Amino acid sequence: MPKTLRLDPDRLFPSDPETRACARTLYKIVADLPIVSPHGHVDPLILVENTPFADPAQLFLRYDHYVTRVLHAAGFGLGELGIPTLLGGDVADPREAWRIFCSNWLLFAGTASGYWLQHEFVDLFGITEHPCEDNADALYDQIIAALQTEAFRPRALFESFGIDVLATTDDPMDDLAAHAALRADPSFTGRVVPTFRPDNYLNPATPGWSDRVAALAAWNGTAAADYDGYLGALAGRRRYFVEHGAVSSDHGVTQPFAADLSHERAAQLFAEALAGRLDAEGARIFSGHMLLESARMSLEDGLVMTVHAGIVRNHDSGTFERFGPDTGHDIPVATSYVESLRPLLERYGNDPSLHLVLFAVDETVYSRELAPLAGYYPAVYIGAPWWFLDAPDAVLRFRAATTETAGFYRGSGFIDDTRAFLSIPARHDMSRRLDASFLARLVREGRIDRQSAEQIIYDLVAVVPRKVFKL
Amino acid sequence: MPKTLRLDPDRLFPSDPETRACARTLYKIVADLPIVSPHGHVDPLILVENTPFADPAQLFLRYDHYVTRVLHAAGFGLGELGIPTLLGGDVADPREAWRIFCSNWLLFAGTASGYWLQHEFVDLFGITEHPCEDNADALYDQIIAALQTEAFRPRALFESFGIDVLATTDDPMDDLAAHAALRADPSFTGRVVPTFRPDNYLNPATPGWSDRVAALAAWNGTAAADYDGYLGALAGRRRYFVEHGAVSSDHGVTQPFAADLSHERAAQLFAEALAGRLDAEGARIFSGHMLLESARMSLEDGLVMTVHAGIVRNHDSGTFERFGPDTGHDIPVATSYVESLRPLLERYGNDPSLHLVLFAVDETVYSRELAPLAGYYPAVYIGAPWWFLDAPDAVLRFRAATTETAGFYRGSGFIDDTRAFLSIPARHDMSRRLDASFLARLVREGRIDRQSAEQIIYDLVAVVPRKVFKL
Amino acid sequence: MPKTLRLDPDRLFPSDPETRACARTLYKIVADLPIVSPHGHVDPLILVENTPFADPAQLFLRYDHYVTRVLHAAGFGLGELGIPTLLGGDVADPREAWRIFCSNWLLFAGTASGYWLQHEFVDLFGITEHPCEDNADALYDQIIAALQTEAFRPRALFESFGIDVLATTDDPMDDLAAHAALRADPSFTGRVVPTFRPDNYLNPATPGWSDRVAALAAWNGTAAADYDGYLGALAGRRRYFVEHGAVSSDHGVTQPFAADLSHERAAQLFAEALAGRLDAEGARIFSGHMLLESARMSLEDGLVMTVHAGIVRNHDSGTFERFGPDTGHDIPVATSYVESLRPLLERYGNDPSLHLVLFAVDETVYSRELAPLAGYYPAVYIGAPWWFLDAPDAVLRFRAATTETAGFYRGSGFIDDTRAFLSIPARHDMSRRLDASFLARLVREGRIDRQSAEQIIYDLVAVVPRKVFKL
Repeated sequence: MPKTLRLDPDRLFPSDPETRACARTLYKIVADLPIVSPHGHVDPLILVENTPFADPAQLFLRYDHYVTRVLHAAGFGLGELGIPTLLGGDVADPREAWRIFCSNWLLFAGTASGYWLQHEFVDLFGITEHPCEDNADALYDQIIAALQTEAFRPRALFESFGIDVLATTDDPMDDLAAHAALRADPSFTGRVVPTFRPDNYLNPATPGWSDRVAALAAWNGTAAADYDGYLGALAGRRRYFVEHGAVSSDHGVTQPFAADLSHERAAQLFAEALAGRLDAEGARIFSGHMLLESARMSLEDGLVMTVHAGIVRNHDSGTFERFGPDTGHDIPVATSYVESLRPLLERYGNDPSLHLVLFAVDETVYSRELAPLAGYYPAVYIGAPWWFLDAPDAVLRFRAATTETAGFYRGSGFIDDTRAFLSIPARHDMSRRLDASFLARLVREGRIDRQSAEQIIYDLVAVVPRKVFKL
Repeated sequence: MPKTLRLDPDRLFPSDPETRACARTLYKIVADLPIVSPHGHVDPLILVENTPFADPAQLFLRYDHYVTRVLHAAGFGLGELGIPTLLGGDVADPREAWRIFCSNWLLFAGTASGYWLQHEFVDLFGITEHPCEDNADALYDQIIAALQTEAFRPRALFESFGIDVLATTDDPMDDLAAHAALRADPSFTGRVVPTFRPDNYLNPATPGWSDRVAALAAWNGTAAADYDGYLGALAGRRRYFVEHGAVSSDHGVTQPFAADLSHERAAQLFAEALAGRLDAEGARIFSGHMLLESARMSLEDGLVMTVHAGIVRNHDSGTFERFGPDTGHDIPVATSYVESLRPLLERYGNDPSLHLVLFAVDETVYSRELAPLAGYYPAVYIGAPWWFLDAPDAVLRFRAATTETAGFYRGSGFIDDTRAFLSIPARHDMSRRLDASFLARLVREGRIDRQSAEQIIYDLVAVVPRKVFKL
Repeated sequence: MPKTLRLDPDRLFPSDPETRACARTLYKIVADLPIVSPHGHVDPLILVENTPFADPAQLFLRYDHYVTRVLHAAGFGLGELGIPTLLGGDVADPREAWRIFCSNWLLFAGTASGYWLQHEFVDLFGITEHPCEDNADALYDQIIAALQTEAFRPRALFESFGIDVLATTDDPMDDLAAHAALRADPSFTGRVVPTFRPDNYLNPATPGWSDRVAALAAWNGTAAADYDGYLGALAGRRRYFVEHGAVSSDHGVTQPFAADLSHERAAQLFAEALAGRLDAEGARIFSGHMLLESARMSLEDGLVMTVHAGIVRNHDSGTFERFGPDTGHDIPVATSYVESLRPLLERYGNDPSLHLVLFAVDETVYSRELAPLAGYYPAVYIGAPWWFLDAPDAVLRFRAATTETAGFYRGSGFIDDTRAFLSIPARHDMSRRLDASFLARLVREGRIDRQSAEQIIYDLVAVVPRKVFKL
């Protein structure tokens, strides 16, 4: 008989009864507050088109590389799990992929993905049994039936989830038609904002960079080889994003690195890059200069600047070639922000109108670098635990590692950073429970009084993300 | 009056009563299961010869550099502690060494060694007082009397400990006569398997490398300078080990590093090394290539591949010269696996028949590198907390750092990695208690249901190590 | 209405009732023991002159960059907070600075500074309300009135704080007149000892190094260019410090690094440095050699050697130019001690008469490097959690990371390292509570018996710091 699946109303609260009672009280203050999601990867088209989600495999597996990587590690091929190859060919039967997932449910025990999925299964679909081989087909049918109902249409979920703001992540040359359509549609009242993600336009080492530079120039009416035109085009596209509601630009870099070049030197590297003569070190320096230039543009147009650093993307080249990016083998590495970002911080770090949010997957930087930097520079905010660290124990480690140096008001607020639309409420609920747990411990240890804790948890959920992301 | 020494039946369980009760229940499931020890350093001769252990000093101090290093730090010379110098000369009176140990028992409070020793003293010898200056001689006599009894002969202990499998660590040219003798002996029914440890044959920078290459060649009937013969000899010795029951090869490297050289380039470096013309960087690259070659051989002969990385051996050269290796001054350093092992993982990481177990003493890699790698590559398993990290709080940090990304089924299972034969039950018991404690917290926090926790703890002890080590 | 400010008598104790009761018992053993402060930055002149402290802003903000950096991060300029610029000009009204601080009290919730300030406000000044905008002026008046009383004179506080020993930090050429005056004054019975801090005399890369070398030479009656004279002068100044009561020399370096040069090579680098021809790498090597020479001198004159490593000083150059050092933007970086200190440890690490205390702000080195080094070398002691890590959760992480390898007797004992005189009792009390909490958990988990825990906590407070600092 399959095991019972349920949600403990006290889940994630500390075990000590008195601390738990305090956590419960604190959680109640924020449990039902609207969701602010200032950075994520949901495709805005699902809200424009509002068509029902296809099936459980596509919904829970295909786009969630947190989930597929666990099954891949257990020996299943990505193809079996319903991920199409770039070479074309048949895609696995979603029902078969779903069976693999259900039969291996125990592998997700204790993982962040398992926690969110359990929340979604119980809370959204009323599932009461652990997925397993025996009930896989029944669960598939149950979920697919729900997905056909009006209540499970994307817009209905957006509303029932209580989402106040949802940010997407977009290519700088995207016409943002989906965002425009949503804003123009009187039947949709949610706020969906684009995010300017220019990495591929700033780093000459990315394949196709010169084509993208040419596209920028064409849009701008300048020559591709004109460095000032390039800067102007970037600033212009940023303005276009601002006009379409964007509040931030996002920078994904392997190592955080800023360089402060003269205009002449930068223009020279730009020319060499276009001529295909720039080596790896030159590309690194030019990219670093463009990070600094992005900060300068931020001070002009007000876009919040988020930096996601420390990930080696597409570690498994063979899989990347067959299945593309975001297939589960992006691996963190040691990161350092102190000397490498210094040129940017020395120039702009003392300006409170710049909001520079630094995200990390190397948790050693929390106490060593990010809290001390954010505890001094008014421009620096500590990004919420990201990616692999977006999980209960890791979040509590993050709070413990940063609060004693930087307090509660130098963080970004919770960021779900997900493309798994249905997981958004589970993730924000998790974060609120963990904030309640952390604060309750400090109350119980006599380090914060209860009244202050009540104010802090409200601020963490309702005030901080809006302030940091200028919402 | 000496303080009372006892074992708390609830030791290592969390303090919260409800969580503690759950931990107790989970622990009971595995408390008496047989011991699987797939990697360690017990000398097989003690089982072949089955002679009584000599005395407490030799048993608990001389071969346990965890213990002698603590006394060395307190200012006692290794000679005083009964460790013979390589230069010969008198060895200290074991009774004197034992007195030093007993008089300094408080130095072990809170250490892993202290925890295991307390377990052994109480559980095996029925000692009821803290060791101290006053009772040192009496304890010495009490232990030596016990060691003379039949019940304390190595084979009797092997049986009473409930050891199912015990792996030793052996030189590739070892004739494995001890293992053969044990298998041939109908009066000994335990399973003792050798482990292929080829570092000194793969790394041209180790003193005596060319002599060992010559020995390999002589055994193989090929010329020492023949690179293909060298590869063939290694493969042959691995087969010899497999025939004698080996299930794994073990690779101890300062930094984990794999290189993927052409056959021609590798042969050239091999020739330069034999000619004494290979510099440090060349030796590093050739060693890295041989790590990759070892993985290739693993795919052929099925040997599990364990990598123990991140230790600077013999930090104190003067002591090394006088007392040899394994005398307490091997010190961990920062380690990185992501880019450095990439050539190996890109080539073989997706093959589930390769079992590559990565051990670390730099705990920052748990959440940052090892869990993400093992959470994607089917070949990669996360080694249990090793060496300095094989201790209660460190083990719980390990679980917290890896589980949220990789779950419970990508670890190696517990490894005692010890040459201290009498400590084996204490170490496995510690691990089982900590697994129970970790799981109980997750149950209490509503993250895992109790039924799943019961299955997981059973799997962690009885299933996972057998699966990972192909036992 | 402002929130009530109070001190929980059970603050910092674990939440589980049984563990908490044990912690309370352990804490009582040490709660009222005298304070031993073997490293800090209090100005001895405040004790010589014994004049009342000026006002709350100067007392709590101006000299405490832990506090001003939090307000700076919130967007307030250092000038607004009452810090004078090096360029001269008006200093902000202290009452205005105090208002900013009180209005932003919530920013300190959960921080170490907030914890200490709360202790001081309640315990020293009897404040019963959270500071806020409304009560800022009243609190200012209340504190300033107290500061005028005899009980708040520096010497009276020194006595009521129960300070047994207080170390200051001093320039090698300081005449130590303040220390001499205190020792000569029969009305002051406290022990205040200087500390030899020679960084600026050892590192040719520090501005003004050659002038300081010249000053040393002039004092010594040798030529500035005489390397042996330079060594002799340093040894002479160390003796001068010893004669004035010093027990330690302190070495603040960005990276811990020792080099073992020949006398000839060192003399050559010294000459090049004086001639302004030494590059950065040469300066690094010469400094490393002088660290080793300092250890050699320590063996002669008995000074304990403390190394504070891993901080990039004055990260924000613009602020440094306007406001000077110690203004909140010293930022930690990753540090490594294993290979970099090896030359020193190989030479002197086995001599128990050398006391080398290694402090870190990169907490990854606790379990990886410092505990293993101090768990072997008799000369090495693990510095107490320093700077950003001198906070409740960080201290418990430190204990958990080091104890299992090195036990309780290889640490330095608590170091307050503060220039905030009034915070000394709060800091030592915090440390004692945390030791009680950590030990109580180990008692409750059956890892240490209560009697041993009672002895250990007494030793940690009363014995260890005196032994390590030869007091």
